[in-house]
Order: sequence, then structure tokens, then C-alpha cells
Amino acid sequence: MQRKSFERMPCPIARSLERVGEWWSMLIMRDALHGFRRFDEFQKSLGIAPNILARRLEALVEAGLLERHRYSEHPPRDEYVPTPRGRDLRPVLWSLVAWGNRHFAPEGASVVLLDAETGAVADPIFVDRNTGRPITEADHVLAAGPAAPASTRRRYAAAEHAAHAAPLPSARRRTAQ
Amino acid sequence: MQRKSFERMPCPIARSLERVGEWWSMLIMRDALHGFRRFDEFQKSLGIAPNILARRLEALVEAGLLERHRYSEHPPRDEYVPTPRGRDLRPVLWSLVAWGNRHFAPEGASVVLLDAETGAVADPIFVDRNTGRPITEADHVLAAGPAAPASTRRRYAAAEHAAHAAPLPSARRRTAQ
Repeated sequence: MQRKSFERMPCPIARSLERVGEWWSMLIMRDALHGFRRFDEFQKSLGIAPNILARRLEALVEAGLLERHRYSEHPPRDEYVPTPRGRDLRPVLWSLVAWGNRHFAPEGASVVLLDAETGAVADPIFVDRNTGRPITEADHVLAAGPAAPASTRRRYAAAEHAAHAAPLPSARRRTAQ
Repeated sequence: MQRKSFERMPCPIARSLERVGEWWSMLIMRDALHGFRRFDEFQKSLGIAPNILARRLEALVEAGLLERHRYSEHPPRDEYVPTPRGRDLRPVLWSLVAWGNRHFAPEGASVVLLDAETGAVADPIFVDRNTGRPITEADHVLAAGPAAPASTRRRYAAAEHAAHAAPLPSARRRTAQ
């Protein structure tokens, strides 16, 4: 039911969250992208109830983020391997790592992104692939795209109107800062 | 209960998800970052039940992502304004937009990130602020950081071991590709 109602939403954020917008799913993907493959590995890493883990793994397979491979017939045992779609989730995890380290790690970073060649800590920032310019709140704005239905266009028009009236600076009001 | 158990996890992904790892919270932040401020605006945009919206707004205020400002005393009415911590969530949303557009938008993009100056569609990619190099699966790896407790170090050591044995290429095995 929830799945259906989210699928009707054209917003790519809503559609993405439908697949992973839940604590355990994202943490399972974190571990899968680290190289964990087997039920017991996920279970041990996450301390998650087996029935919840089984359900979340199944949902991630259905959503096309993990593939199930049987590695033993007697007893039957499966591995879960990230698909290209699942591996493409990495930037979302990187952005969560960066945000978490900035705001919820008073004791210092417990997880960092490393340059595998030099071992130096990397500081991930978004730039526009086309122009090389950093993506910033002041210079960039989300907007309705070519495939946006009327409802999305209305929401973005309303958002822009709200931003004009808002007390905080926004992309649309940057000249007034 | 869940909040407590996640707070004990040192992983910045887990701690971040504790704040926003739930569909509605992230979509409320999406709308707040678009400029929506008032209960009715969120409600209309999301089609969410008022009691759920009230609870999620409260949780986002408690987590320090939104600030509540009273704008009317008679009747009492509040606005919800993103804090610096909340505004810093933008890269997570951008990464979800990019992932959603790539994988769940067969009809084309309904939301895009625009260069506010030129109006051109931006294509956000992560680069290392220090080196300017794109962050890639082949060249970068998540690892235990300076504040990592023993449990985190064990998990990353186990993950590295699992990655060596995994059938798919990973950062640690890139020379073997």
C-alpha cells in the first residue's frame, strides 16, 4: 500500500526512499557495499532480528539493489550481491557519512572516506560534472524537470513562492543576502 | 528504544538515519528546504495525515534539523525553518535525486538540479575537496576513523576480508579487475 502510494509520486527522492528510506535497508546496503555477502555476516554486523533481516533482504532483491546467488545446495544458502543499481547508491552513503560526521560525531569521526591510493581522508563535495562548479545552496536549486506532471510543477511553483516569502536566504533570494 | 540503540552505534550513517531515515522525515525536509514553512503547506504537499505530520515535525525539531517559530498568537500558529544542520542535509537530497533519476524515472526526470545562474541542468558528482579527484568506487573506500571503537574496527576489518573474497570488484581488489 505504502509502496503504491509512493510509486505514484513522481519525485525521485520519494521513489528512492521507497527503496531504501528505512534504517535497516540503508544499513544493510552499507554492509553489502563494504563486501558482506552472507546472512550471518549481516546479522552479526547489525544485531538485527533474523526475520526482519530476511524481510529487508527480500525487499532489496525485489527493488533490484541486491542479487541473490545460491552458494550452497546442502544446506541451501544464499549470498546477496549488490547490483549496479545497488552499487550506485554509494554517493548517498557518502553524503550520509559526511553529514553524520559533521553533526553527530562530537567524539570525532568513527568512519571516514579514504583515498585508497594515498590513504588520505577524502572530503566529498558535490560539483557539477558539466561545469566543475561546486553545487551550493546559493547557486543551485531543485526544479521541476521535463517529465514533471502538473502536480510537481505546482509544488515547485508553490515552493518558489514560499521561498520568496521565507525569512531565510534561499537560492532564489541570494541577491538579497 | 530504537533511538537509543542507534545512538549507541558509532557509524555516522546509522546516526544520520536515526534523524531522517524514514520516508516522511526526508520528504518533509525536502519541502522545508524548498521553502515551505507552514503546517498546511507541508500537509498539502505531502498528503500526509495531520497527526503523523505533527509527530515528524516535532522529531525534526528535537533532532535540531528544524526550528519552530511562532508567527501568530491568535490563533497560535508555528512556522518550521531549517537550521544550519537541516540545510546541510541538501547533499543527501541531491544524491537521492540523482540516484532516483538514474534508476526510477523511466519516463524522464521530473525533478532536476539547476544551475540557478544559467538555468542549465547540473549533474552532481562527488569530488574530494582536497585533491579535486572524483570519488569513485575504485579509488575510495570507507574505513574506520580516528574515533572508531573496537566494534567498528572489527566490522571494517571483517568487511575488508569479505571484500577480498567477494565475486564483484571492490576498491580493495581494483588491481585485479
